[in-house]
Amino acid sequence: MKDVALGIDIGGTNTKFGFVDREGNMYAETSVSTVETAPGDVEAYLKYVYEEVEKLRDTIDEKMNIVGCGIGAPNGNYFTGTIEYAPNLTFQGVVPILKIFQQYYDVPMVLTNDANAAAIGEMIYGGAKGMKNFVMITLGTGLGSGFVANGELIYGNDGFAGEMGHLMHRPGGRTCGLGRQGCLEAYVSATGIKRTVFKLLADMVDETPLRDVTYNNLSAAMITDLALKGDPVARAAFDYTAELLGRSLSDIVAIFSPEAIFLLGGLAKAGDTLFKPTKQYMEGHMFEIFKNKVPILSSALEGRNAAVLGSSALAWKEISPVIDVSAQP
Amino acid sequence: MKDVALGIDIGGTNTKFGFVDREGNMYAETSVSTVETAPGDVEAYLKYVYEEVEKLRDTIDEKMNIVGCGIGAPNGNYFTGTIEYAPNLTFQGVVPILKIFQQYYDVPMVLTNDANAAAIGEMIYGGAKGMKNFVMITLGTGLGSGFVANGELIYGNDGFAGEMGHLMHRPGGRTCGLGRQGCLEAYVSATGIKRTVFKLLADMVDETPLRDVTYNNLSAAMITDLALKGDPVARAAFDYTAELLGRSLSDIVAIFSPEAIFLLGGLAKAGDTLFKPTKQYMEGHMFEIFKNKVPILSSALEGRNAAVLGSSALAWKEISPVIDVSAQP
Repeated sequence: MKDVALGIDIGGTNTKFGFVDREGNMYAETSVSTVETAPGDVEAYLKYVYEEVEKLRDTIDEKMNIVGCGIGAPNGNYFTGTIEYAPNLTFQGVVPILKIFQQYYDVPMVLTNDANAAAIGEMIYGGAKGMKNFVMITLGTGLGSGFVANGELIYGNDGFAGEMGHLMHRPGGRTCGLGRQGCLEAYVSATGIKRTVFKLLADMVDETPLRDVTYNNLSAAMITDLALKGDPVARAAFDYTAELLGRSLSDIVAIFSPEAIFLLGGLAKAGDTLFKPTKQYMEGHMFEIFKNKVPILSSALEGRNAAVLGSSALAWKEISPVIDVSAQP
Repeated sequence: MKDVALGIDIGGTNTKFGFVDREGNMYAETSVSTVETAPGDVEAYLKYVYEEVEKLRDTIDEKMNIVGCGIGAPNGNYFTGTIEYAPNLTFQGVVPILKIFQQYYDVPMVLTNDANAAAIGEMIYGGAKGMKNFVMITLGTGLGSGFVANGELIYGNDGFAGEMGHLMHRPGGRTCGLGRQGCLEAYVSATGIKRTVFKLLADMVDETPLRDVTYNNLSAAMITDLALKGDPVARAAFDYTAELLGRSLSDIVAIFSPEAIFLLGGLAKAGDTLFKPTKQYMEGHMFEIFKNKVPILSSALEGRNAAVLGSSALAWKEISPVIDVSAQP
């Protein structure tokens, strides 16, 4: 019998889950549709998730003893265990997701958003082990962030702290997914760099294969590939993205003085193409006393099922905090 | 005999200190010159401070039992007890101030910067009692800030977190006191609003008594008085300052989701003239989920010797933490 945490990541399209032990080993993982089963009916949806979890558990030879459950979800509130007005989910209003799911598993259960879950995942299984102060940035459809200070994730007064994607980069600028104008995530994210490419296709006259790709067909991976081949528009798009990200990170360092910054997600997969210029711009804008102190690192969860790992880490942190307080500098 | 903390605030010009009990009652306070006695010689300076503290103690009828000492100083490092490269002090390089001062008082001793000390003062004696997540902004010569999350002040990895005054507001903009260009504090501070007045005197044609005042003679208090009387340039200066401060605070809320924001210091004395438009601009820029949740409050330390109170609070917090953990929402 193996003690595991059930990690669940609720996304707008899919719900992923898996069983993860204390060391971050994943025993089984799968994904089901969030929307196809009873859209808007959270009770039916969670019953379906429970049944699928049990099906998955039956496929494993070793007996999985679920000792906790962590759930990552958009607008997931750590304090209340509710998902509140998530724009990309079919569940409306305030949904008491932990209360409902606890019918199925009477174990410690924790909810937060996916970026916070990733931060905890980095702290429990990844490159932030032993760190008391660090920042996690997720660069996917949007820009998510989780901030750890004094060894604890910052949830804020209402449970919703850490919305770096909604820093006001340019008042009156690009509309973000929530209808605001000028949010950082409309510029710095996998979606943001696509938008930047289309702006640059308008601004520049250079020949590029990007002129034969529709907006809907364009991906961050394609932009990365072209940038590596020296495509001028793709390179300019990375430079623009890196400048905004680097400048924002220098501000974040002035506030938090973190030991490291971790990047995770679609756009972060670009590696040096993104990391190198971002670091240069960050240091160029950095307040003197913080210069050359803060590395930008690739998340150790990258390439694994980061969302499920992060969610499971939430549960492990709740069950047995492992922060090494002696690591304080 | 009364148990008191010795609170010391080291400024570029003056060093203030006083004896403060656990409830924030100040028994005696005074101020001596930081620079006149042995400039650059920190050992001689601290001996002088010690002698002056003892002289002050002798003036009090009740016996003052010093149980701890808190020191606020520019670039004061909480982790190391050293003042590091403070641009406005005559002590050069890294100065082990606690180590030296501990020769005179063998009690728990704590060092941090003045804005962090003010945040702790607000938490121990002021309006942030019982709050686990709040922000302190000091608007004096510069813009200082202290951030409390999960009931603890954020010192960061190197002890220097909380430099909101050095957020990059406008790359290539106004030069700040440290030679950087475009820092928020070059716009939003008692000095910043003076600079804004002089920019507006150039931009606007309105008649105003401000056209008869030199830069060196202008104070934030004069600008406040004129704004209250409807002076168009003074009012425009407050509007400009409030817009930048309000927008920055909406960003800070998106990161921290604080229970409240406290303002303290020279410019904060303007009261509603500053607070009302700042709140309007903050809410106007605020990400939806945080709208109308976060009050901007006047520090309860305002009008008292905030720097000395804050420093003494540092000591009290170290001796006996008083955060009410049951206050978590």
